[in-house]
Amino acid sequence: MRVVCLDLEGVLIPEIWLALAARTSLPELEKTTRDEPDYAKLMHYRLDILKKNDLGLSDIQNIVSEMSPLNGAREFLDALGSQTQIAILSDTFIEFAMPLVAQLGRYFILCNQLVIRGNTIEDIQLRQKDGKAQAVRGFRSMGCQIHAAGDSFNDLTMLKTADKGVLFRSTPSIIEEYPEFPHCEDYETLLDHLFFD
Amino acid sequence: MRVVCLDLEGVLIPEIWLALAARTSLPELEKTTRDEPDYAKLMHYRLDILKKNDLGLSDIQNIVSEMSPLNGAREFLDALGSQTQIAILSDTFIEFAMPLVAQLGRYFILCNQLVIRGNTIEDIQLRQKDGKAQAVRGFRSMGCQIHAAGDSFNDLTMLKTADKGVLFRSTPSIIEEYPEFPHCEDYETLLDHLFFD
Repeated sequence: MRVVCLDLEGVLIPEIWLALAARTSLPELEKTTRDEPDYAKLMHYRLDILKKNDLGLSDIQNIVSEMSPLNGAREFLDALGSQTQIAILSDTFIEFAMPLVAQLGRYFILCNQLVIRGNTIEDIQLRQKDGKAQAVRGFRSMGCQIHAAGDSFNDLTMLKTADKGVLFRSTPSIIEEYPEFPHCEDYETLLDHLFFD
Repeated sequence: MRVVCLDLEGVLIPEIWLALAARTSLPELEKTTRDEPDYAKLMHYRLDILKKNDLGLSDIQNIVSEMSPLNGAREFLDALGSQTQIAILSDTFIEFAMPLVAQLGRYFILCNQLVIRGNTIEDIQLRQKDGKAQAVRGFRSMGCQIHAAGDSFNDLTMLKTADKGVLFRSTPSIIEEYPEFPHCEDYETLLDHLFFD
């Protein structure tokens, strides 16, 4: 059996932190894993900014609940999911992402969790180091073949570990640095890469 | 994160082979893993009966497509899936089960595959030996906690390997032989065991 592993932000939904930066008028929240590959470092930087600006969990959840999946993402998942198994692998936090992920359908998702006290986000609780690549290894240990797609630095070990890795709407520098991965910009071509190939 | 691993037949949908036995008037198809724990042996026995009676893939699919999930299964999955991740682990064959599984929703499922030539089922292709327990190990290697539920012999290693195993609508002899597993007959209690506990 084949399992298709998909990154969430940038592939199926918009980057949550870019939306938060825009909606809170805090441009310092625009930094992503494209800029800072050390995710724990990036997250602590982000949480500090939230605390300084008195933004709690409910403020973030309110903003995320008004967001929508990327155009065509639901139809893409529908087409792919009728043919193969899908696992969404994300470094985001279930507490942030759920209102948006629920709009996609009842797909299997592995991500991280927050440490919450009242309405304050105290810390992050990462599932495991290099969790996306580890999930690919886990599915392979179940006798599955893995195709994977992602857009960013934090997807590269997942793409390398998979039987086939595809870059979707990635940056010119990543596309240039990793010519071993096919890349595409539209869901139709992505479906070809992930399922028909 | 928690992943709940669920057996399919007997837990979410009726036993496919019992339905086939009834619809084809072939009582010899009634043998299940409750009677014959060696699954490959059981399947070759079943395929021989199908061949002798000129029953091909399309005949089986037609019968399965008229079946429905067990009463309350969809609502149970809805309630569970809004709170945790679900993986359905089945020893059945994707070619048989898909019309019925699709009625449950887009849940992650791992099962086996058939070797088909034209309309004839030639052989079976098992994903891996002891695939249910191996899937539990795989999800644990992803940093997840595993709760699992099943009804039959072929679920016992999955239940033993999980952090918590529950017997659902099992036989008196299995319930008696495995007092270490809590057992229940209704979805409400099962939800308590798998999620709230």
